[in-house]
Amino acid sequence: METVPMDLHEAMRYATLGGGKRLRACLVYATGEALGAAPEALDPPAAAVELIHAYSLVHDDLPCMDDDDMRRGRPSCHKAFGEATALLAGDALQTQAFAVLAAAETLSPQARIRMVEELARASGSLGMAGGQALDLKAGPVATIEVLEERHSRKTGALMHAAVRLGALAATPEIPPALDDYGRALGLAFQIADDLLDVEGVALVVGKTIGADAAAGKATFASVLGIKEARRRARDLYENSLASLRFLGDNGRLLATIAHYAVERDH
Amino acid sequence: METVPMDLHEAMRYATLGGGKRLRACLVYATGEALGAAPEALDPPAAAVELIHAYSLVHDDLPCMDDDDMRRGRPSCHKAFGEATALLAGDALQTQAFAVLAAAETLSPQARIRMVEELARASGSLGMAGGQALDLKAGPVATIEVLEERHSRKTGALMHAAVRLGALAATPEIPPALDDYGRALGLAFQIADDLLDVEGVALVVGKTIGADAAAGKATFASVLGIKEARRRARDLYENSLASLRFLGDNGRLLATIAHYAVERDH
Repeated sequence: METVPMDLHEAMRYATLGGGKRLRACLVYATGEALGAAPEALDPPAAAVELIHAYSLVHDDLPCMDDDDMRRGRPSCHKAFGEATALLAGDALQTQAFAVLAAAETLSPQARIRMVEELARASGSLGMAGGQALDLKAGPVATIEVLEERHSRKTGALMHAAVRLGALAATPEIPPALDDYGRALGLAFQIADDLLDVEGVALVVGKTIGADAAAGKATFASVLGIKEARRRARDLYENSLASLRFLGDNGRLLATIAHYAVERDH
Repeated sequence: METVPMDLHEAMRYATLGGGKRLRACLVYATGEALGAAPEALDPPAAAVELIHAYSLVHDDLPCMDDDDMRRGRPSCHKAFGEATALLAGDALQTQAFAVLAAAETLSPQARIRMVEELARASGSLGMAGGQALDLKAGPVATIEVLEERHSRKTGALMHAAVRLGALAATPEIPPALDDYGRALGLAFQIADDLLDVEGVALVVGKTIGADAAAGKATFASVLGIKEARRRARDLYENSLASLRFLGDNGRLLATIAHYAVERDH
């Protein structure tokens, strides 16, 4: 807790230990447990996906990106520590994600390497960072395909990776049905997000234009309409449950997470 | 070359393929060859250290950090592509460094994991990013110990890691003398940098105040004086050569790099 440089480490703790849903860590644990992984083998990948998620939020909130002053009910990292320290904290959190995986002695070297590879693919220019870049250019009009492509990278890739990392703690052969689950869940989560953006604002302000719409970005709600977006989220939820059938009772926790992803109120 | 998102990938290429000394890659190759590593085993770690170096330069040039408009004789990445894209390009370059190591089929899983671990340690909050954070707070007065601590993290850690990664391509047991070499080289390089900052400006502007001094940051030149700083760089160079003795003729290339590090004119 007293390691130099103090404020960099404080900013890193602020960005990671200050709440959040921990949905990605839950996905790692739920998938790993469903396939019989040892619990202690799941801590490193669960920490790693949350570190990547936390780094992405810190950078996403910066003035040159979304310029958000608040995050998880508190000042965002750069508001609390300044832009330069927030930038470095995000950088170092990403590094830490790979450090945690590499040092995971509860996992075989082969499993660790696969996890580093999967996590890097999901968070790099073809995954999350690429999705952010597409988001920078997002306009008010989009086809459903363009929207799905953007979100499958921006938020979907890391959720899908959380499922795959959890599976890799148990087996080198990831069951294809879990990929179906991971993809459906990521998309359902994002549609639910878009609906919350509309309905949250609707409750408070009394109109149906949310933050994304105000920023001039197409959302699932704006492209499909609220009713159709809701139907689509429900379909994806049903699909995700169907993908879990091969797990029998062991898929219970993953089913609960899918339910939460579409029904949550925040 | 045509992979979406196009401008993110273009920014990543701009930041990595636009020149630079490639000193860190040379260190990987020279160390690996000295210890008898297969040449094809050295490409992934050489690429990885240069990717980390390139990411750090992109982020370091951003307005909230050093706010540099030029890099390697061209507009810096954010000047050419905008801040948001430069931020994401730096992020994705860091990710790519670990992706390259994880996918290195010319290396055993054990070697890859060790390399990920070493590279993460050298670039994270206890290494390069930590050194940048210390640099943010740097003032005009410093003891030589504080200065060495800051620079051993900011620039030294990644050079030292380049040596260690090159060694790991050949053997899991890194010869301790190579650590001495890596540390001496990193420090000598930084002192030479400080001297260039003073002497380069002296030639052009006719005064002995360089960019670091102008930014109010203590340098080896300002703390030790130019004459003593030069003597120290030469001592470190001699030490680095002494550390290479165990390699006999095989240490020739590493000796050349050490000579270049202290005698270069840019």
